[in-house]
Amino acid sequence: MRAAVRTGVHGIRVEDVPDPVLVEPTDVIVRVVLAAVCGTDLWGYRGLGEIPPGPRAGHEFLGVVEELGNAVENFRRGQLVLAPFMWADGTCTACRKGLPTSCADGAMWGGSSDGGQGEAVRVPYADATLIALPMTAEDERLPSVLALADVMSTGHYAIGNAGTGPGSTVAVIGDGAVGLCAVLAARAAGAAEILLLSRHELRARVGQKFGATETVPDRGADAVARVRELTAGHGVDAVVDCVGTQEAMDTAVGAVRDGGTVALVGAPHAALPGAEQVFLRNLKITGGLAPARVIIPRLIDRVLDGRIDSSPVFDLTVGLEAVPEAYRQMDNRTAIKALIRIS
Amino acid sequence: MRAAVRTGVHGIRVEDVPDPVLVEPTDVIVRVVLAAVCGTDLWGYRGLGEIPPGPRAGHEFLGVVEELGNAVENFRRGQLVLAPFMWADGTCTACRKGLPTSCADGAMWGGSSDGGQGEAVRVPYADATLIALPMTAEDERLPSVLALADVMSTGHYAIGNAGTGPGSTVAVIGDGAVGLCAVLAARAAGAAEILLLSRHELRARVGQKFGATETVPDRGADAVARVRELTAGHGVDAVVDCVGTQEAMDTAVGAVRDGGTVALVGAPHAALPGAEQVFLRNLKITGGLAPARVIIPRLIDRVLDGRIDSSPVFDLTVGLEAVPEAYRQMDNRTAIKALIRIS
Repeated sequence: MRAAVRTGVHGIRVEDVPDPVLVEPTDVIVRVVLAAVCGTDLWGYRGLGEIPPGPRAGHEFLGVVEELGNAVENFRRGQLVLAPFMWADGTCTACRKGLPTSCADGAMWGGSSDGGQGEAVRVPYADATLIALPMTAEDERLPSVLALADVMSTGHYAIGNAGTGPGSTVAVIGDGAVGLCAVLAARAAGAAEILLLSRHELRARVGQKFGATETVPDRGADAVARVRELTAGHGVDAVVDCVGTQEAMDTAVGAVRDGGTVALVGAPHAALPGAEQVFLRNLKITGGLAPARVIIPRLIDRVLDGRIDSSPVFDLTVGLEAVPEAYRQMDNRTAIKALIRIS
Repeated sequence: MRAAVRTGVHGIRVEDVPDPVLVEPTDVIVRVVLAAVCGTDLWGYRGLGEIPPGPRAGHEFLGVVEELGNAVENFRRGQLVLAPFMWADGTCTACRKGLPTSCADGAMWGGSSDGGQGEAVRVPYADATLIALPMTAEDERLPSVLALADVMSTGHYAIGNAGTGPGSTVAVIGDGAVGLCAVLAARAAGAAEILLLSRHELRARVGQKFGATETVPDRGADAVARVRELTAGHGVDAVVDCVGTQEAMDTAVGAVRDGGTVALVGAPHAALPGAEQVFLRNLKITGGLAPARVIIPRLIDRVLDGRIDSSPVFDLTVGLEAVPEAYRQMDNRTAIKALIRIS
């Protein structure tokens, strides 16, 4: 079969790779229908090296069940299924506590395992990992459903961690797909003010469509000053940092009010503020890998009935052979997020 | 009047100082009945210099209203009142958001203002700061009430920040008065397991009386190993760090389960864990100065009816002239917390 393989910094190539086979009786083989390129994929592409080692790429996909191990109970051949961005065993303490992202037997797709950016994927612990979809592979809502694999679940989780609710104020740093999904989630949560830090006209426009009440094109100290100006000097109740650089962290800490929350999203490459500042200002630092497997069943009805439609984050659609072009465009910021139509 | 005055590292002396006078119409002069020495007082005493500059000491007191400014509405002469460890104006955004510890016009007692360890205190913004007590200055419940000024409110706040509730597990690092009060608060919150990290027999005994289900005498990596052993390898749902050293922070991060909370209490002198660890393990870092002014009215009924009695943290009672001896004993850890009977 064909699959996207990483070849180094700025290197991604679609190659022939071995077809996946069932290894454990709890496995399923999924024929991929739709996949996507994530901002996280760009960390490795840019040589920032936080992606698990190994050649295969992509952690967002949905597809059709093609083969099933003997122990799989919840699925049947031909069924359409969505995978969250990590698999998990479903039985360990972390899984039972609702945190499958900390499953010791789980991991993110790609690396030495199959990646979503390929024709098929061996799915471990299929019963615990996959989610059945009540639709066909031709359904036009599939892009919005696919966004639940990572970016929409992550945005929703971040806004929950931020404590955003009716009447509250939130700033979202980052205008990538996750930042935009966080805006959408903040609106759904009833936030009164949603400030999107973006200096990119097209992305800001999607942000406004999703519910941003203001866009702030500034960065660093200027962004802090502007957020404070927009909140009568007080700062926002919460900042969702979807960038993860030191500048973004400093902006988040500067823009949040005392007693507020900084929710970290996306793998952070930054030092946290000093413990003393956290203490004296009563800040909360929270966030982490979204347990998408737990979140998807909570959101799917709202996605299916159109109340949540994050599909506008996909502003580029490619076939599998054009995955390298999709990476290039996302790296250049000429595309927000690429959808890959595979079968 | 007489008051405790700081004279440098390991220097505290009771001296003649000017009597306080009303300065603003919102002031009240309180004649102090009971005061206390706090673990925080020892930071400055030990030369760790996080105490605001200036000579006066003590931020826990209750007493009788002696003089009132013209604008004071809520109090009358002769009334018994409790002060939280900081004053605040009650009108700014932080105060209205329930966070008087971030009031720009507020501060902790002591330093260049009057301290609680003296015969009288000028109280700014008295209506917003003080809490009326429905009892006389002879009431035997006063030590338990006084503990609300800081340590019991702080312990309660930490356990709230930790998210401790029925059935949850919590480890408390630190067997000072705040740690012990956190144990008491955890029991009140219904925690299933309360692990107190203490190697001090007398303090551990108070902890057990307050509800600790285990005491862990180890430190550092051994303490982490022991906490994990006691929780089937998983770590506790939350750790309350009442020590604030780097060793304590590292122990907290090591002992908490993925998805759990580290609640910081007491001025931390430590670096937070890396943002990446917080992210990958879905940790929450929270805590801060307890808004005692907000917490006291919520707890006072339970203190008055005896459901919460933290008075065993006071294992030494002195008069004002013996304050230096109280500091010495707390510094040597021969006393947990000193109560000062002043008038």
